[in-house]
Amino acid sequence: MRIKPEELKSHQRYRLMIGSIVPRPIAFVSTLSVDDRPNLAPFSFFTGVGAEPMTVAFCPANAPDGGEKDTLRNCKPVAEGGTGEFVVNVAIEAYRREVSAASEPLPYGESEFDLTGLATAPSVTVRPPRVAASPIAYECRTRQVIRLAESLPGGANLVVGEVVQIHIEDKLVNERFEIDADRLAAIGRMGGIEYCRTRDRFTMSRGRAAFDEKV
Amino acid sequence: MRIKPEELKSHQRYRLMIGSIVPRPIAFVSTLSVDDRPNLAPFSFFTGVGAEPMTVAFCPANAPDGGEKDTLRNCKPVAEGGTGEFVVNVAIEAYRREVSAASEPLPYGESEFDLTGLATAPSVTVRPPRVAASPIAYECRTRQVIRLAESLPGGANLVVGEVVQIHIEDKLVNERFEIDADRLAAIGRMGGIEYCRTRDRFTMSRGRAAFDEKV
Repeated sequence: MRIKPEELKSHQRYRLMIGSIVPRPIAFVSTLSVDDRPNLAPFSFFTGVGAEPMTVAFCPANAPDGGEKDTLRNCKPVAEGGTGEFVVNVAIEAYRREVSAASEPLPYGESEFDLTGLATAPSVTVRPPRVAASPIAYECRTRQVIRLAESLPGGANLVVGEVVQIHIEDKLVNERFEIDADRLAAIGRMGGIEYCRTRDRFTMSRGRAAFDEKV
Repeated sequence: MRIKPEELKSHQRYRLMIGSIVPRPIAFVSTLSVDDRPNLAPFSFFTGVGAEPMTVAFCPANAPDGGEKDTLRNCKPVAEGGTGEFVVNVAIEAYRREVSAASEPLPYGESEFDLTGLATAPSVTVRPPRVAASPIAYECRTRQVIRLAESLPGGANLVVGEVVQIHIEDKLVNERFEIDADRLAAIGRMGGIEYCRTRDRFTMSRGRAAFDEKV
């Protein structure tokens, strides 16, 4: 089947994307409103950008009325009226229900920390709290927000943030800064309302050597 | 453990990122050099950006000498000396070895299609070929390249591209444009040389309803 994007409705394009760009890591993002009310929401259009500088990006779509979702409203740069800060917590099996529950649309200022019962813990370098139960958290400063369809319902935005502080549970990481995937037990997003676990793994060497191995 | 990024070396930060931002979808990106030589490489710092407009992003780091990797050199905008085009193919179990093999660093102009034995198929709207065996492919035009540490070894770059043509195998998708995850059999990236399959899945309703279900 060959399709041009303009032949599809926005929600059909979205369904194709979430079903084909899989499995996706989940940024469980905590922010503060400018008047200090905490917010927490999951985003699976999320990626590492690189380690030099240590940078991540996530993509909150515009709300159905074309306005900004709470997370974007909170984390956009100070010059644009936001706090310029956010924390990326990880999504793990232990609090998987809380991750999904936090996607509940709440009136601005009502906290998903209250809704989910997840406790906050203070951050070190930024003001938004982190999720106390999260075994890894990246405190971030927003570098840039790219708005691809400003004010359009569902319009795409890309938030680029630099990591300024790392939290990690000691038992998850070895002296080479490798993370134990079984202990982390991260979950990923698939299409629709599906998620995947990260227990079913295999290894392959990089480059030509991949052909020399039995997988 | 609390760490500031500047206390770590670049490769240590990278290891933390690839171990904690998991599972990651893989963009198997095909490009053409300006003199028409095909290139193919996998990128797991990759995300959907949104459906309005239909946009994706991936992040090729600078080469160890600070220069551009072949994919970036090829797909950067025409105004910057590139072709402004790329194709995102998906990474699936059937050609998992070829995905890993294509990360072999080859001299500029030597093709990973030849190295891996994967066949090309013509694209419709852009000039770089797609991977014939890929059950889904997104032809893209580069909208923007963000360079976070130009000329620095390992420096982060973010390539934002708009999807201009979609290819998808009919049997993978239903009339609602939902994709069958079992038939797709995508693989994801974990830390180190680990990958994960996408067979071990579960569902949760969005929002508060997640608490009402047994998972």
